[in-house]
Amino acid sequence: MTGDWERFRGMFWFDAGLGVSLDVSRLGWSPAELDAFAGPLSRAFAAMEELEAGAVANPDEGRRVGHYWLRDPDRAPTPEIAREIRETLEAVEGFAGRVLRGEIATEAGPPFARVLHCGIGGSALGPQFLSRALAPVHPPLAVDFLDNTDPDGTGRLLERIGADLPRTLVVVVSKSGGTPETRNAAEAVRAALRARGLTLPPRAVAVTGAGSALDRRAREEGWLARFPMWDYVGGRTSVCSAVGAVPALLQGIPFRELLAGARAMDALTRVPDPQRNPAALLAAAWHFATNGKGERDMVVLPYRDRLELFSRYLQQLVMESLGKERDLAGNVVHQGITVYGNKGSTDQHAYVQQLRDGVPNFFVTFLEVLDDGPHPRTEVEPGITAGDYLHGFLYGTRQALAEAGRPSLVLTLPDLSARSVGALLALFERAVGLYAVLVNVNAYHQPGVEAGKRAAAGILGLKARLLDVLAGAEPLTVEEAAAAAGADPELAFPCLRHLAANHPEVTVEGDPADPFGLRYRRK
Amino acid sequence: MTGDWERFRGMFWFDAGLGVSLDVSRLGWSPAELDAFAGPLSRAFAAMEELEAGAVANPDEGRRVGHYWLRDPDRAPTPEIAREIRETLEAVEGFAGRVLRGEIATEAGPPFARVLHCGIGGSALGPQFLSRALAPVHPPLAVDFLDNTDPDGTGRLLERIGADLPRTLVVVVSKSGGTPETRNAAEAVRAALRARGLTLPPRAVAVTGAGSALDRRAREEGWLARFPMWDYVGGRTSVCSAVGAVPALLQGIPFRELLAGARAMDALTRVPDPQRNPAALLAAAWHFATNGKGERDMVVLPYRDRLELFSRYLQQLVMESLGKERDLAGNVVHQGITVYGNKGSTDQHAYVQQLRDGVPNFFVTFLEVLDDGPHPRTEVEPGITAGDYLHGFLYGTRQALAEAGRPSLVLTLPDLSARSVGALLALFERAVGLYAVLVNVNAYHQPGVEAGKRAAAGILGLKARLLDVLAGAEPLTVEEAAAAAGADPELAFPCLRHLAANHPEVTVEGDPADPFGLRYRRK
Repeated sequence: MTGDWERFRGMFWFDAGLGVSLDVSRLGWSPAELDAFAGPLSRAFAAMEELEAGAVANPDEGRRVGHYWLRDPDRAPTPEIAREIRETLEAVEGFAGRVLRGEIATEAGPPFARVLHCGIGGSALGPQFLSRALAPVHPPLAVDFLDNTDPDGTGRLLERIGADLPRTLVVVVSKSGGTPETRNAAEAVRAALRARGLTLPPRAVAVTGAGSALDRRAREEGWLARFPMWDYVGGRTSVCSAVGAVPALLQGIPFRELLAGARAMDALTRVPDPQRNPAALLAAAWHFATNGKGERDMVVLPYRDRLELFSRYLQQLVMESLGKERDLAGNVVHQGITVYGNKGSTDQHAYVQQLRDGVPNFFVTFLEVLDDGPHPRTEVEPGITAGDYLHGFLYGTRQALAEAGRPSLVLTLPDLSARSVGALLALFERAVGLYAVLVNVNAYHQPGVEAGKRAAAGILGLKARLLDVLAGAEPLTVEEAAAAAGADPELAFPCLRHLAANHPEVTVEGDPADPFGLRYRRK
Repeated sequence: MTGDWERFRGMFWFDAGLGVSLDVSRLGWSPAELDAFAGPLSRAFAAMEELEAGAVANPDEGRRVGHYWLRDPDRAPTPEIAREIRETLEAVEGFAGRVLRGEIATEAGPPFARVLHCGIGGSALGPQFLSRALAPVHPPLAVDFLDNTDPDGTGRLLERIGADLPRTLVVVVSKSGGTPETRNAAEAVRAALRARGLTLPPRAVAVTGAGSALDRRAREEGWLARFPMWDYVGGRTSVCSAVGAVPALLQGIPFRELLAGARAMDALTRVPDPQRNPAALLAAAWHFATNGKGERDMVVLPYRDRLELFSRYLQQLVMESLGKERDLAGNVVHQGITVYGNKGSTDQHAYVQQLRDGVPNFFVTFLEVLDDGPHPRTEVEPGITAGDYLHGFLYGTRQALAEAGRPSLVLTLPDLSARSVGALLALFERAVGLYAVLVNVNAYHQPGVEAGKRAAAGILGLKARLLDVLAGAEPLTVEEAAAAAGADPELAFPCLRHLAANHPEVTVEGDPADPFGLRYRRK
């Protein structure tokens, strides 16, 4: 028992300025095993210093990696970059302020009443997380997100917005300016506006790379505003750029406090001493827990409703950054760490059964928030509040897992302010960067995503060819249509089914119980 | 290529009545490897037949397992059970109808305007999933969920409901009637009502086991209605009971169609032939993919916004059912299958990078919905709709994963009707039941959850003792307070921090930068 307490004290990291602490003592490692990371981490600190100084840290794409400059422009490698970061933030603040004061308003005069944010992946998850974590209960403008190309989901959201659509500010976010899901979402919004005799440009904002297709269109059509995304900021680390700032400021989230928290955490995570650097402690913990090969999943359990999207945000940050086929030397390594989780104590009723008793294929990151929040405290038993229960469940679950030999960490925030959330985001960004050096992968590209995009484009092309061959005189079976279109029948089969279900000009004949005997035709 | 097509045709399962199909051909197995499951699955079919006939299939708790009877009461083992299932559904329908018609209304006269559902785990996830998947865009009564004991989350939701609270029907769901999170949520609602000079009983509904603490209180206080949960229905399979029916019917979801879809799928998954039974195909696929030991995670990717909670629902159903320390013979096996996922194509921008290139520790379950839905179709390119893109992304991602040797399944629903969702739920319930027989575990208990509850109770007790010892003359350090309370200082430390942050009578002295030197005192 005393040994545990000594180990706890010895491994405990704490910063009085931010009020953040990290306990890695229950990971099943000894102080000596942690010390063994000193050498590898010193190389990681050096690599991170070069990255922050403007080295091309993403060699495949020939790009610098500058998300740390967003909260401390003085550290940018050139005065031009520092200036564009500062000026963009000021421009977003100015724009949001004018919208909130009604100085920028709808063409008919009334101020904007809500926001529709179109974006996917790195262009949505950060803003969604901030909205759930930090937006006031009654924000000046509520934000909805269109983060997919599902016509059912899009149609339902537009139906829900309904008569508010004319007073909805539409923010379209795509770094490349060519993301199909986001383009499709914006087109659906255009169509809904057209049906009301309205157009998109007088209510549209673009956040995109300068000169992209989206940027050009926004300029040509005269959208309300355009804000830049830069080559040196990846989508999954863009929350401190205009991507995060536009929706956050429109919701009344104090964005500069978020940046200040991130900046303070950046300073703490630059300390080149593993024991005094919480990002280094996390990176070492991940490496120890997963054997440096992703052998365990990272379960993320924040005990706070407002943090329930944090695991989805981390899922992207960690898995897209670390999930790589090759290391920087070109060796096939199949790296990565799987991340999942929702929130405590709710998840205790879903899968803590398996965590405690089942496959030991994970380590848990508990997220504790000390301040129970500003709402009236209800005693549910003499002297005991609902918050005491939440806290008891966190440490009770941790204890039950420890008894079963299941490793865990506890990260503690003092409160759920914008400052603390900024520190949280910066801590994990840095931990991912350091871990990537430990396992020698490029954390800043995503080459595997291209294969799926190419294959999807191939399927859209196949559908177009199928529509052509179905226009002949005779209805065709799957095999006949595939042969005529020069396609694999295994792919033609789902395409024909989807066409028949949704394209009214495609009809199908035959016995539904014999799916391979059906014949398709285009009227 | 032709070989793939033959394999696809040979392994393809399809039912024309439900319009559901399942493709397990891309799992990396041969027909012979699938055939090898015939023997083990025949034992699983027999066990499932006994279970449905009323055997005590949950031996640890001495309980029958009757969720299949909920949609086909004729199959219940006794006329009494059949009658209570039928009468309860009729009672819920009658109650919901009277609420919707305003015949049951607030004490002040106006009809109810919304619903607040208090429940956690099995008492919330099913209703939450149904609400997201099936509620109309403008439901007759919108439902919010209180599924935690987080005072911040509870306070924010009550603040958002605000002036609507007097017209809010409060549904409290707990099988045992003693779930602390749910009790705490209901207490917070009581307090908020009290602050408005109102009381809970005239707007409250209980769904709980007959004779539970919740049931007794609801009866004594004269709540609006009480509906039973039964011993033979576990929380994670309770969505077809009053737990699912009450919120579903209040939202205008056609609950009997859901039951009919589940009943139809139950019939299809009773077929004692692995190749003609989709639940058997799934169970065999899971066993093959995970080596019968949970060696791969199950990634669930529904390409439909309305299905984004399905993976959370499955996470509970699969992990709580299968994540077990011991098999039925008492051997230590540490079983389970990890489940995670959100929705496609959104998740492609989050972690498909890792799925394609990184750690090969998973298999994917793609969920396809053929009908793109009733909303106006927008052509985003000539002849191509947003729905074609969504479909192309599903099959493109699948192809990119297959090229990299990553296994996957595709489950296809014809549409997202209540009937199809019922079939979906029933398919996975049966697959979990069959798989549990394959690996010889009790799928219907959750012994590991108790350890966490006991430990949490211990922490609440420790807090009470700490409050006592802090009332002495001198302020105490962590170590002094722990010693005085007879507690482990590693547990006393977070308890003291949380008390100091939230209990105004607890004060702290010393240098915040020296957390182990701080002294705590109670005024």
